[in-house]
Amino acid sequence: MTFKYPGGKTYKTKQESELVHHFQPNYGNRGMTLEEDLNATNEYYREHGIAIIHKKPTPIQIVRVDYPKRSAAVIKEAYFKQASTTDYNGVYRGKYIDFEAKETRNKTSFPLQNFHEHQIYHMKQVLDHGAICFVILRFTTLNEIYLLDANHLLTFWERQKNGGRKSMTKQEIEQYGHYISLGYQPRIDYIKVVEKIYF
Amino acid sequence: MTFKYPGGKTYKTKQESELVHHFQPNYGNRGMTLEEDLNATNEYYREHGIAIIHKKPTPIQIVRVDYPKRSAAVIKEAYFKQASTTDYNGVYRGKYIDFEAKETRNKTSFPLQNFHEHQIYHMKQVLDHGAICFVILRFTTLNEIYLLDANHLLTFWERQKNGGRKSMTKQEIEQYGHYISLGYQPRIDYIKVVEKIYF
Repeated sequence: MTFKYPGGKTYKTKQESELVHHFQPNYGNRGMTLEEDLNATNEYYREHGIAIIHKKPTPIQIVRVDYPKRSAAVIKEAYFKQASTTDYNGVYRGKYIDFEAKETRNKTSFPLQNFHEHQIYHMKQVLDHGAICFVILRFTTLNEIYLLDANHLLTFWERQKNGGRKSMTKQEIEQYGHYISLGYQPRIDYIKVVEKIYF
Repeated sequence: MTFKYPGGKTYKTKQESELVHHFQPNYGNRGMTLEEDLNATNEYYREHGIAIIHKKPTPIQIVRVDYPKRSAAVIKEAYFKQASTTDYNGVYRGKYIDFEAKETRNKTSFPLQNFHEHQIYHMKQVLDHGAICFVILRFTTLNEIYLLDANHLLTFWERQKNGGRKSMTKQEIEQYGHYISLGYQPRIDYIKVVEKIYF
């Protein structure tokens, strides 16, 4: 949320990443994006000493910066860049955790176009190095969330590259993924699932 | 390195993103900042399957974005934010690796003001969760680089908070840290030290 003080200067009360959503379509009627729910969840995990996981800042390509006297540097021209990694990473019980989170309004399948080639490549790389890597998938309209190990995503990605379907069916996600029950605190308790399936 | 504008406010000249370097003075005669050397090193590690470590994007607070027709969204007003974590993290042999890199032109000590309270807090948190966490310290003028485990940094930080000196002496860094020899590829082979002291 942004508001203006009498001087005309704009102030911002929310996080950078949340702000960007103001300029983009919002999903569902819940008023909370998957990112907001995960940020709240990760904050809960950090505060309760459960895991230290952060969302990475949105990558920005800066073109022009002004250095006005007596005030902070102002970025006057910049562009959003495509991320070269997944959005979330951190540590749980000493292990490296890495994941991406995506949502769809579809009810019966999850389009693979939600992922980019170099995110997939990054997931392959971290898996090779012993990371715990997965995706968190929300069916916004159904309000159902699943954790799917990245190895399965890679299989579906390969299928697509070999001429197969451009999405994962909901049934496949139910079969290979793990349903995450929703709560109040934490909202999306994915570490419970991580603990169950990786430790 | 910081310098002051006529208004008296201090500006940092060292920024995380390479792009920002276009607007700011360069160091020494080497033409390479510590960040550039580490980015090249991490790229080498990724390409050779040694470790997957990335620098996080510079956190930016976005205030205004334009959406011109037929072209990409342009950020028209944004500000640099202070990072809430360290700059680098990733995975090596399944373990979570987390570090911050800083340089000084001093020759006999390393000022603790290079670190921020919440970076220190973040290091404490990840150590508690079993992470490998350290700082990479470059004495720019001497062109010497050391890896210092975050536990030692925390001790020096505590000493400062208790009224002690506001820096670590070079001697202390030599004693508790590990010298990293410089090379061509990779330029700063810190993983060699990590392998030796943590595995």
